[in-house]
Amino acid sequence: MIVKTKPPFKLSSSDETDRLGEIYRAAALLICEKGYDATSMNDIAEAVGLTKAGIYHHIEGKRDLLFRIMNFGMDELDENVIFPARAVADAELRLRAIIANHARLIISHITPQGYNPVTIVVEETAGLTPEHRGKIDQRKRAYVDLIRDTLKQLEKEGKLRDVDVTVATFSLLGAVLWLSRWYHPDGSLTPEQIVEEISKITLGGLLRPHFAPQR
Amino acid sequence: MIVKTKPPFKLSSSDETDRLGEIYRAAALLICEKGYDATSMNDIAEAVGLTKAGIYHHIEGKRDLLFRIMNFGMDELDENVIFPARAVADAELRLRAIIANHARLIISHITPQGYNPVTIVVEETAGLTPEHRGKIDQRKRAYVDLIRDTLKQLEKEGKLRDVDVTVATFSLLGAVLWLSRWYHPDGSLTPEQIVEEISKITLGGLLRPHFAPQR
Repeated sequence: MIVKTKPPFKLSSSDETDRLGEIYRAAALLICEKGYDATSMNDIAEAVGLTKAGIYHHIEGKRDLLFRIMNFGMDELDENVIFPARAVADAELRLRAIIANHARLIISHITPQGYNPVTIVVEETAGLTPEHRGKIDQRKRAYVDLIRDTLKQLEKEGKLRDVDVTVATFSLLGAVLWLSRWYHPDGSLTPEQIVEEISKITLGGLLRPHFAPQR
Repeated sequence: MIVKTKPPFKLSSSDETDRLGEIYRAAALLICEKGYDATSMNDIAEAVGLTKAGIYHHIEGKRDLLFRIMNFGMDELDENVIFPARAVADAELRLRAIIANHARLIISHITPQGYNPVTIVVEETAGLTPEHRGKIDQRKRAYVDLIRDTLKQLEKEGKLRDVDVTVATFSLLGAVLWLSRWYHPDGSLTPEQIVEEISKITLGGLLRPHFAPQR
């Protein structure tokens, strides 16, 4: 059943941004559930209560949709994780901010299905053109570099355990990103408890005992 | 270019198993690179040097292919990680065996493209029928339960840090599974060094300092 929840007038810039976010999230959910090829522009329009003409007002077609969803996911990462972290001079506080803010970002958009579709779609760059894939890979690399540089700074300060910085970077990323697949809003822990637990677990494996929480 | 590397005689049981594994790995790689819908049985036949008739000797069609690849991945997990771990009575040694053997399994089949396609395809159960998805989810749950029970045993023995067992289980799984996406065979660390590092990092976050490696 098609339910059109929005009138077809021109949206203001901020509304437009919100509306695009809503469209990207709905499209990512459909892609996770049905696969990219099986998801049509009509399906997406229906999911967000737009007519077919309405959806084409926002998005020119499926060809660029994946790239747009991934850039949307990376924009959210910039805004909520990367930019705030770059403003923190102290490496330990920066690492704590990265873990907590990234976990919070993922949890904040877990669907009732029990996963975060945008985070999952961002992992799958195979469907992109080589040029678009290069751009997304570059944005991901910037995040990896931020974590790696932070760990290197901690190493210099004597705060890092004797671990390989590259393995540490990706182990941390894996532990945090996996939240997008297992965290369920009906679980017994609140989002902030999850953030605290995942911070404790990952920091415990990276920081020397003197610095990590000792419980 | 189609290169047929195998004569079309009937294979012995062990050869047949090896051949099926080769076909599943090649199919998973194509699915990761092109997507499931864009991958044809012809593409898979070509990738493993079989004729179209040859591939249908092994696999009835694309419909069950995803399910077969996932069961193949879970069979490998059973054989290399789950069954050996169940034979270890001591919880700490069992946890160490799980991490090391799972990391080894993932690394052993990283392609020159820099990822493990079977491990990645096993994550994507959306393309399955509900019945098949239920079966794969059940096998995954058995693995999650093994890790969770091991951590609960460590908790009883006073060896686990004060962390939530569920968050710990999935953080560990995320850190290890992420190997399938970032480890590159051209990197500077050997597979065994990676296994050692990822063990040190994940155990450091889970075991109390008295038990975790103190370096």
